[in-house]
Amino acid sequence: MSKSENTSGTVTEISSDGSFKRQKNRFITPFGTSEGELPVEAGRYRLLWSAVCPWAHRSVIVRRVLGLEEVISLGTASPMRPKLAHVDWEFSLDENGVDPVLGILYLSEIYKKTDPDYTGRPTVPVFVDVKEQKVVNNDYFKLTNYLETSWAPFHKENAPNLYPEHLREEIDALNDVIFHEVNNGVYKCGFAQSQEAYEESYDVLFARLDVLEQRLAKQRFLFGDYITDSDVRLYATLVRFDCAYYSAFKCNRNRIVDFPNLWGYLRDLYQTPGFGDTTDFDAIKRHYHLSNHIASDDQKGHKGILPKGPDLSGLYSEHNRHELSRKEEKFLRG
Amino acid sequence: MSKSENTSGTVTEISSDGSFKRQKNRFITPFGTSEGELPVEAGRYRLLWSAVCPWAHRSVIVRRVLGLEEVISLGTASPMRPKLAHVDWEFSLDENGVDPVLGILYLSEIYKKTDPDYTGRPTVPVFVDVKEQKVVNNDYFKLTNYLETSWAPFHKENAPNLYPEHLREEIDALNDVIFHEVNNGVYKCGFAQSQEAYEESYDVLFARLDVLEQRLAKQRFLFGDYITDSDVRLYATLVRFDCAYYSAFKCNRNRIVDFPNLWGYLRDLYQTPGFGDTTDFDAIKRHYHLSNHIASDDQKGHKGILPKGPDLSGLYSEHNRHELSRKEEKFLRG
Repeated sequence: MSKSENTSGTVTEISSDGSFKRQKNRFITPFGTSEGELPVEAGRYRLLWSAVCPWAHRSVIVRRVLGLEEVISLGTASPMRPKLAHVDWEFSLDENGVDPVLGILYLSEIYKKTDPDYTGRPTVPVFVDVKEQKVVNNDYFKLTNYLETSWAPFHKENAPNLYPEHLREEIDALNDVIFHEVNNGVYKCGFAQSQEAYEESYDVLFARLDVLEQRLAKQRFLFGDYITDSDVRLYATLVRFDCAYYSAFKCNRNRIVDFPNLWGYLRDLYQTPGFGDTTDFDAIKRHYHLSNHIASDDQKGHKGILPKGPDLSGLYSEHNRHELSRKEEKFLRG
Repeated sequence: MSKSENTSGTVTEISSDGSFKRQKNRFITPFGTSEGELPVEAGRYRLLWSAVCPWAHRSVIVRRVLGLEEVISLGTASPMRPKLAHVDWEFSLDENGVDPVLGILYLSEIYKKTDPDYTGRPTVPVFVDVKEQKVVNNDYFKLTNYLETSWAPFHKENAPNLYPEHLREEIDALNDVIFHEVNNGVYKCGFAQSQEAYEESYDVLFARLDVLEQRLAKQRFLFGDYITDSDVRLYATLVRFDCAYYSAFKCNRNRIVDFPNLWGYLRDLYQTPGFGDTTDFDAIKRHYHLSNHIASDDQKGHKGILPKGPDLSGLYSEHNRHELSRKEEKFLRG
């Protein structure tokens, strides 16, 4: 396996069989109260994300659902990769072209400042310690769990419990499957460099969607009546599926609208505060169809033309998923 | 407007506003019995096509529906454009890599032999006079009409009437609309070199599909109970839509499966002899997603990976469109 060894080149996380192997996270110190853990403090950290990124989106959803918006600030990178540094992110949406708190244009700047020897891709989501001006955690897999647990002292009153103790083992196990086969599964399809690697990932992805479709036939959410951390993770991929992965990553056996239960489930979540209101389709479409990181060559061929479709108005339509639940609320409180 | 001026380069049929303007046909002598017309003779002509091409497909459908297969022979070019001559077609599917009747590898060879000064794209469908060894007609717009009228003496017994005299004016008018807004409409989307030109074509295309969807709500075919020449033309685009144009040409407001009437209509036609049995999805997908003419740059980006989807099995499903008709048959005979 060839590891990602550059901060300004192209994706190099490709195995000899043509399959995509995502790089490991470098900054993984947990948040907590034990020695060596990252202290949980209001106003100390800035969460950097791009609205296009499913890994970052999940943290932004949970931050809003739990009412952490005044506690952890948010910096938003452009959906488009920088022209001369395909794997970087840039804060060109901000006034003066730099993040107003950190003063950086490129995300790589804060990674390099933290560790001059950092050689991986600079990724979002990432927590930056504003006081120390350094990257402290880019562990996209666990960030939502930290927000749900270690950050509990700062949750809003009567905040939902997205990660109830009695379900954690099951949630972790499902998250692992969703990660490998769905969240990262679409990337394995899109970044595969051999027909065999692509088809294998495609088959695994749709087999899993078929299973999830069945699971959601008789229950409103993945673990029953209430939204959990697993739903956040599945949502981030499902909401990008029809407008991005279907075409740009060749995940085109079916769209999500073709799965009656997944489609109702996606609408149910989309219409929930924290989900639809953090979903930026324009950014998502621009990134996956035009950004030179993914579509550099396609861009040349098509002169950077953005697909006008698909018709996403159905996301606002009635879904009647509440009929699957005996609860009034879709969040477990407290 | 920059005209197509090469036989081996790339598509140059692009206006200054970025819109695609298809080249005019060069060989348009009609078939008939008048002086100067092409004589109608069994065994004299060879129809060259590629299974990917919607313009050629319509002639091949009509040839089969009318029983002209023993009268006009068929040469089949590869779905993939030649590597070094993007606008040409090659007969590499044939044994020894040449068309067994004409002895040519590249379609351009017979065009050049016919007219050494020919500077347009060599196109299919094209009728070649085997006796004279030259191109005689590449008028894709009118070829089906010649097969339906001038070639009547060779139709099979009790052949359908696809172009009944009392409807010709209406069929011609609808064909004109279907040509500009649908058949060529998808190419205008796919080949547009400006966002404005693309979006304009996209809007026109889907507005027309919406109108056709309504037209087919209460009648089985475009002109009522029977299949006509217009249905053949619409079919050739509809059957390629979801597996090719939706992604490769960014025609992605909706797929055909999302239009209940168009989708039932497409299945009805697909299940009709001459239609589904002349439709080669593997060829279509390879061409639109991999052929370097259209996807040269995309191909580099994606290492020539062929999308595995979409799921096309629904084409064989029941459609119940016959309930819209009081006729037993879907062809008008005689």
